[in-house]
Amino acid sequence: MDYQPINLAEKLAKFSEQWSPKIVAQMNDYHFKIAKIEGEFIWHDHPETDEVFIVLKGQLEIELRDGNVLLNEGELFVVPKGAEHKPIAKQECHILLIEPAGTLNTGDVVNERTAASDIWI
Amino acid sequence: MDYQPINLAEKLAKFSEQWSPKIVAQMNDYHFKIAKIEGEFIWHDHPETDEVFIVLKGQLEIELRDGNVLLNEGELFVVPKGAEHKPIAKQECHILLIEPAGTLNTGDVVNERTAASDIWI
Repeated sequence: MDYQPINLAEKLAKFSEQWSPKIVAQMNDYHFKIAKIEGEFIWHDHPETDEVFIVLKGQLEIELRDGNVLLNEGELFVVPKGAEHKPIAKQECHILLIEPAGTLNTGDVVNERTAASDIWI
Repeated sequence: MDYQPINLAEKLAKFSEQWSPKIVAQMNDYHFKIAKIEGEFIWHDHPETDEVFIVLKGQLEIELRDGNVLLNEGELFVVPKGAEHKPIAKQECHILLIEPAGTLNTGDVVNERTAASDIWI
């Protein structure tokens, strides 16, 4: 029996909507999610968990209250637990997120930018 | 203040030894590790945790007791908790591993292939 790997580019090709993370894998109680983002997100934090961003395509800026970080393809950043942050992508950017299952994209804020946290692709 | 992202290619350029995972980031109690591998590893499992492999360069085969999986660049696979597996790379392959801090590369086997699990780069 052959198992199938998860091809991130193929998964990304399956949807076009932005700011709507899709789960591609689960490791213990963590989810690996891919997302397409463009423009500015809202300030938010995750009081209970760190959050990892990996840029798969494009460029991502993450503003933090005391500075910012610019990520290009193949770069990774860990937003610390409780650190307010605002992701920004001047052009469409594809990212891989790793965080505990159930983590909301808007953290402890729930509003019109809040996406479902349980959509697999 | 500008934060620095973690550039996986730059980190990989800093070492040449194979089968010696280096930690590049921590998220909660999980480590992100990069490794260069070539040849066959030993059969082992991780009784307490799933383990994620992402291929950054090259090709990785993972044999499992009931099948196998072939990963190319940009592909991901979750080896389930307790599943015996044997990674194989016919040519040098660069991988990103995600697993709990302290996880040994040889799982519950400790032998000459066992690498330190606490080396950052």
